[in-house]
Amino acid sequence: MSLEETFGKLAIDGGDGAIAVKSLVFKPKTPKGQTPVPVVVVALQTTGTPSGVIASVSGTKDPRLARDELFQSHFKIGNAKEFHLGHLAQAEGEFKLLLDDKLVALEDDAILQLNEEKFVSKGGLVKDYLKSFDPVEVDFSQVIEAKPKEAAKPKSKSKEKDASAAALEDAKLIGITVDKALDFSGWYQQILTKGEMLDYYDVSGCYILRPASYAIWEQIQRWFDDKIKGLGVQNAYFPMFVSSRVLEKEKDHIEGFAPEVAWVTKAGSSELDEPIAIRPTSETVMYPYYAKWVQSYRDLPIKLNQWNSVVRWEFKHPQPFLRTREFLWQEGHTAHLTKEEAEEEVMQILDFYAGVYEELLAVPVVKGRKTEKEKFAGGDFTTTCEGYIPQTGRGIQGATSHHLGQNFSKMFNISVENPLGSEHPKIYAYQNSWGLSTRVIGVMVMIHSDNKGLVIPPRVSQFQSVIVPVGITAKTSDEQRAKIHESAKDVESRLRKAGIRVFGDYNDNYTPGWKFAQYELKGIPLRIEMGPKDLEKQQVTCVRRNDGKKVVVSLDELEKRIPEVLEELQQDLFNRAKELFDSHRVIVDEWKGFVPALNKKNVILAPWCGVEECEEDIKASSAKKDDGEEFEVDDKSPSMGAKSLCIPFQQPPLKSGQKCVKCDREAKQYCMFGRSY
Amino acid sequence: MSLEETFGKLAIDGGDGAIAVKSLVFKPKTPKGQTPVPVVVVALQTTGTPSGVIASVSGTKDPRLARDELFQSHFKIGNAKEFHLGHLAQAEGEFKLLLDDKLVALEDDAILQLNEEKFVSKGGLVKDYLKSFDPVEVDFSQVIEAKPKEAAKPKSKSKEKDASAAALEDAKLIGITVDKALDFSGWYQQILTKGEMLDYYDVSGCYILRPASYAIWEQIQRWFDDKIKGLGVQNAYFPMFVSSRVLEKEKDHIEGFAPEVAWVTKAGSSELDEPIAIRPTSETVMYPYYAKWVQSYRDLPIKLNQWNSVVRWEFKHPQPFLRTREFLWQEGHTAHLTKEEAEEEVMQILDFYAGVYEELLAVPVVKGRKTEKEKFAGGDFTTTCEGYIPQTGRGIQGATSHHLGQNFSKMFNISVENPLGSEHPKIYAYQNSWGLSTRVIGVMVMIHSDNKGLVIPPRVSQFQSVIVPVGITAKTSDEQRAKIHESAKDVESRLRKAGIRVFGDYNDNYTPGWKFAQYELKGIPLRIEMGPKDLEKQQVTCVRRNDGKKVVVSLDELEKRIPEVLEELQQDLFNRAKELFDSHRVIVDEWKGFVPALNKKNVILAPWCGVEECEEDIKASSAKKDDGEEFEVDDKSPSMGAKSLCIPFQQPPLKSGQKCVKCDREAKQYCMFGRSY
Repeated sequence: MSLEETFGKLAIDGGDGAIAVKSLVFKPKTPKGQTPVPVVVVALQTTGTPSGVIASVSGTKDPRLARDELFQSHFKIGNAKEFHLGHLAQAEGEFKLLLDDKLVALEDDAILQLNEEKFVSKGGLVKDYLKSFDPVEVDFSQVIEAKPKEAAKPKSKSKEKDASAAALEDAKLIGITVDKALDFSGWYQQILTKGEMLDYYDVSGCYILRPASYAIWEQIQRWFDDKIKGLGVQNAYFPMFVSSRVLEKEKDHIEGFAPEVAWVTKAGSSELDEPIAIRPTSETVMYPYYAKWVQSYRDLPIKLNQWNSVVRWEFKHPQPFLRTREFLWQEGHTAHLTKEEAEEEVMQILDFYAGVYEELLAVPVVKGRKTEKEKFAGGDFTTTCEGYIPQTGRGIQGATSHHLGQNFSKMFNISVENPLGSEHPKIYAYQNSWGLSTRVIGVMVMIHSDNKGLVIPPRVSQFQSVIVPVGITAKTSDEQRAKIHESAKDVESRLRKAGIRVFGDYNDNYTPGWKFAQYELKGIPLRIEMGPKDLEKQQVTCVRRNDGKKVVVSLDELEKRIPEVLEELQQDLFNRAKELFDSHRVIVDEWKGFVPALNKKNVILAPWCGVEECEEDIKASSAKKDDGEEFEVDDKSPSMGAKSLCIPFQQPPLKSGQKCVKCDREAKQYCMFGRSY
Repeated sequence: MSLEETFGKLAIDGGDGAIAVKSLVFKPKTPKGQTPVPVVVVALQTTGTPSGVIASVSGTKDPRLARDELFQSHFKIGNAKEFHLGHLAQAEGEFKLLLDDKLVALEDDAILQLNEEKFVSKGGLVKDYLKSFDPVEVDFSQVIEAKPKEAAKPKSKSKEKDASAAALEDAKLIGITVDKALDFSGWYQQILTKGEMLDYYDVSGCYILRPASYAIWEQIQRWFDDKIKGLGVQNAYFPMFVSSRVLEKEKDHIEGFAPEVAWVTKAGSSELDEPIAIRPTSETVMYPYYAKWVQSYRDLPIKLNQWNSVVRWEFKHPQPFLRTREFLWQEGHTAHLTKEEAEEEVMQILDFYAGVYEELLAVPVVKGRKTEKEKFAGGDFTTTCEGYIPQTGRGIQGATSHHLGQNFSKMFNISVENPLGSEHPKIYAYQNSWGLSTRVIGVMVMIHSDNKGLVIPPRVSQFQSVIVPVGITAKTSDEQRAKIHESAKDVESRLRKAGIRVFGDYNDNYTPGWKFAQYELKGIPLRIEMGPKDLEKQQVTCVRRNDGKKVVVSLDELEKRIPEVLEELQQDLFNRAKELFDSHRVIVDEWKGFVPALNKKNVILAPWCGVEECEEDIKASSAKKDDGEEFEVDDKSPSMGAKSLCIPFQQPPLKSGQKCVKCDREAKQYCMFGRSY
């Protein structure tokens, strides 16, 4: 029977209001010389299929979306796009099939739309067809519930039951099932979704920020907004749409963004006369109006900021918070009469950015300047704060503050008469732009969280503390029980009045142990327990989320001590992260030490000549050769070379006559290199 | 010479980096029987060309973008799209030509791109060509400056110099030049742009919210956000993109939005496999995830809110704040276990919305319920608060709070097991959605502002007060001058400490009179003057923006009295607006009184049967016949019929046996009808 016949048997007419079904093929990490066994996932379009779950259920390591070569070798088709379920019937060699339990639960006469509207079929037909491939039924959502559904356990007929090296031995299904140390990316996905920070969305590369993460963003907004308003910055809102003409005005600038710009070409059923871009950033959106508004040097400085979202349609592997097609950020755009004033502001803003990381998120950063190669396209120079992710040993750009010089002001004619008089040349404004995005939340999660779930610093967490009555057993009298609850509620209300973001969980349907696990998963910084002994001693027992340490606080001292305990916790988080960063930032003066240090998950401070070709040489020479595996180089692959992260402002002393780490030129300064996000 | 030849002479090769030039044709309001004289505007693409400026400079009334018929009659071409500058050479009959002075200022060898890339030419050639049509050179920006540029005065060769009936007699060019009473829409445009609230943008229907308006939005956000958080609502962020499948899931709902949805079809240079919509609202974006997150009745209620922007690509005449293609709003989406709980929330939210209008913006509203015809598509019922614009006599929808019933929860399967036990039927959630947009700012401006400029209620204005030293003349001693400045600065710092949003203007280059005009234009609620007499008497003289009334406040009482004065002003603004609304909301029981009352700029409370056909009949019967003028019915045209605005909660007593105002059926209740925005 031909492919078309096989599949044709499934096809039916109709399809209005049909349920979309996706079929995805993953290739797991496979030792050299072995043939990979692909994992085929068939799921409702709306079901997120995190790689952690796929790995765990299929007993494979690190499954990634397969490339065309695998489709050619296994399914005898040219590329991924051609793939449909019919091809399963004539696969060459083994594969594993994971079937979404939500799909299994559909009625037999549900109408399904398969493979992006190419085929329409009925639930029963599809399920019957897939049965022949011995599918494993999977609950991809693994929603946290009191009692995990039966369906959540994979009914695996495969021999490798949860054989993944990364699966946590003692993990319960409701908690994190992947080890941070062994499968960092699977762990990251789980922690975000199970911790209810974020959810996957049915438009690829876009994510839902749930209240737990949005509240962190609101804390950051409030802090940073106050700081910049103190500098005289005002908030405004510019449209999200840009005409192509305006977008493309500054050539260097647009070159950096062009491949990622999303274009609106249609409204309702009408084609637009000209496609309109969605802003990837707002320099060219705003500056024509700066030119209009700035008519005299008295109109300077102009300092505007926007809290908005921008769209960069990246085709690389998306990652929650770190690389998303739409993201929230603030973008500040200022224009000044003098270079000095502009440069001073660039540094003030960079300090605020470092403050967001270090003071709010407890994440240490290194401040410095980007190389010419890595700076913002179209600007004069870029300052940055750079973070470090210990598990992957990679640097991560935190936030950047750019001095644009007069480049944009000349393009857009943002100019004023010279205050010294019209006989002097007119002055083009000196401009800055600076942005900080929701990426900060991802960095924070990667650094502090653990195998029990999220760990969130108290200064930014939506809730700082949860109060849980404990020690209530079958023997506890009603009176005693009421007293414990009453005292717990009293603690809650006192703390709330003291400005602590707190809530109590007085639900009798769940055990304290179950509650503990929940709030550990969600990263509530401090658990406050109130039990019979606490009541007796007029105290509460606090447990710190980060390290499980207990702190007993007398009820008399509640309003004084709890804020202190939270602050100590905040400080400890920062100190621990700083130790890790400091101990993995190593000075390497000679090339022979460079790659070995890199492979030990360090970032490197190396003497450097400052020449761009040399920078490229360092990257190429520190990359391992492609080993033929089908991984994105992007995601923790050791094949990635070291980029320059920044030229730190704080420099180790440079020996006189010191050579560049890579070439024969004299070193100009130390530069921080590392594999990076 | 043929058209093509005429124009061909202008064409040159090249065009990379060319400057875009637009040519627009307007038709002014013209008495019946007279032939309209079109106004042709040739301007840089980036130059905003407000109709107020066009009217004033061309001496015409109410110029609107011409329709195809005018192009056929005047330029012998089929439609507006075909029009280019070459057609000027063979126009039938007169036209006026307005030429952007920014275009005139271009170098002769500047490369211009005319008519959407159809032609490229040089600055000199185009200018020479246009000279033959006796153009009027215009500064469309009319930026507020100390000394208006010479160029700002139209070098009009036309005989009708500023003959517009709407032009203000004593208006200076830096101030408002259009009378609110005579040309409301021209006035509205001027007041927003000259008051620096908003600027026009080069993508039609999109506007820039400048700090003065964004700050008002921030005040509203803070107030409303606190209120809803008090109800347990949490903020979140969902992606701006929606797949067509999800968008179209609820049929009634999407029918309402489909013609206005903007579609992204391209990213970088790649076509997307499937077009992706930009959210026009987020019901269908969010509810699939509500279905996923709500697994047990304990997960209810779920109450999320977003502060975001949405896109509705309207093809009707756009209007700042009131009808824009992108706008900022909040959208709340909640799901409840019971109908009662959901309905209670709908009303709480409506009260908050009324609070935003009445308590913050000093704008009175009438609360009520929308008719079936006017309710939110896909929901059960819509509650609304409705405002009133005295100058046009039109009602305006303020904000709406919808009860969606179980309609969406059934579509998206947001359901839980019955808390009474699994033998009882499962329960679909009862849902609400509610939204308030930046439209509120437009309503506020229309109601309070006047011919001197903006009037902004102190509770929401970016700055509540400006301090201006006065009475300093050439004779004033340096010492005296220093003392006045010092005292003024002291007043500023005391008020700031007292929580007043205040700034001082100590610039010696401008006269107090000039400053007064500036801050009146910008709508600063209270001007505080400090002069020699004030200093002597240890007082300040305050001038209220709304009515010019003076209030003397002793320095001793500064912190106590100034907040009181601001509150009195706020209250007076509300009272005045309420009187106007109350006196223009009239009860009409019989049809013969309906249209006359409407034509007296009233909204009408009429007994009504509640039948949709009757509602349509009322609209049709109250519309004047189309008089052949080429106006959008949308903008203050008297030809518009009366819509039902709402069924007010507060009902006049209904006489027993009262008939419907329009038909023979019995009246069920009073309904508020009016022409509307």
